Amino acid sequence: MYEGPIQDLIDQLAKLPGLGPKGAQRIAFHLLAGENVEIDRLMAALGHVRDDVTFCSECGNVAADKLCRICGDARRDVTKICVVEEPKDIYAIERTKEFDGRYHVLGGALDPLSGIGPDQLRIRELLRRLGEMPDGQEVSEIIVATDPNTEGEATATYLLRMLKDFPGLSVTRLASGLPMGGDLEFADELTLGRALSGRRVLV
Amino acid sequence: MYEGPIQDLIDQLAKLPGLGPKGAQRIAFHLLAGENVEIDRLMAALGHVRDDVTFCSECGNVAADKLCRICGDARRDVTKICVVEEPKDIYAIERTKEFDGRYHVLGGALDPLSGIGPDQLRIRELLRRLGEMPDGQEVSEIIVATDPNTEGEATATYLLRMLKDFPGLSVTRLASGLPMGGDLEFADELTLGRALSGRRVLV
Repeated sequence: MYEGPIQDLIDQLAKLPGLGPKGAQRIAFHLLAGENVEIDRLMAALGHVRDDVTFCSECGNVAADKLCRICGDARRDVTKICVVEEPKDIYAIERTKEFDGRYHVLGGALDPLSGIGPDQLRIRELLRRLGEMPDGQEVSEIIVATDPNTEGEATATYLLRMLKDFPGLSVTRLASGLPMGGDLEFADELTLGRALSGRRVLV
Repeated sequence: MYEGPIQDLIDQLAKLPGLGPKGAQRIAFHLLAGENVEIDRLMAALGHVRDDVTFCSECGNVAADKLCRICGDARRDVTKICVVEEPKDIYAIERTKEFDGRYHVLGGALDPLSGIGPDQLRIRELLRRLGEMPDGQEVSEIIVATDPNTEGEATATYLLRMLKDFPGLSVTRLASGLPMGGDLEFADELTLGRALSGRRVLV
């Protein structure tokens, strides 16, 4: 047992994802050795996030303003919406620099066992967004970029059912297959099966 | 790039030991999803450590009071002092439940290349402690528990030279050898060599 305040900090840190008691202890003693400068900086950054970060009223992404940086950017293509589970997925896709449309954050994936049904996700907001496009603007493609696991696949299937009757709207799903830089012999059967069934014609 | 405050928090978190940009990002988004309760708790714990934790005037351990929990405990054996590099080493030794004496924190190990000489460590304080024992009390053993690496070994050698002329004082060093639960064939030569030269007589 550490002195009270140190143990409290270790307990709080150990609750964070990716940190166990050992990692939390290491960070606590690092902060203790830092003569409070680092603690002050960390507290300021935490306070700033707590007080200044909200969620984009359009797409549900984290935002420092009413609209997130992407929804507020007039150069982004409004005809394409990429649907993701969490804000962090947006940043993963942004890093690819392959997508210049908008996003929509569901806030999770369908998982009935954990009590997450369609009403717990931001699906209604997505349908409203499709129905309320300003005059002359139209969404032509919804890219379903939920995770390639059971919950993400179920969510994709549900979304497809909701969206398939919108006129002129194409619904696509991220490709599954072998990860780039990977090794065919180490791919699991499910992934290799997807890579086979989704094979592309080269010539 | 994330929205300003989030990027700031990720940058601050990524500076902590054991956390890279990915881990920092994961924690930042975890905190964002927590509706501020967890951020508040974490900030309170950080503030508490910043404001209420000092260093023990006797041994240099972290303390919530003038004396740390161990120096303030009259049941601990005052005749044995275990010398460690950092406060966290104290907790590692406490977990063994094998030592009931006091500690002395050096605040590091000799490392001339990084500008850490004897004056940067709390060696003078250790000598003063030995010289200023209350009447009738005497330190009979100093256990040097610095790390078993170059800096720790150099520090142990230096301490031995400083302490060897104290009358009636025995200076000991933690044993080096094979880690328990380990496998002999995977031990490095240095460790195995130490295990051999430090072998114990069984019968």
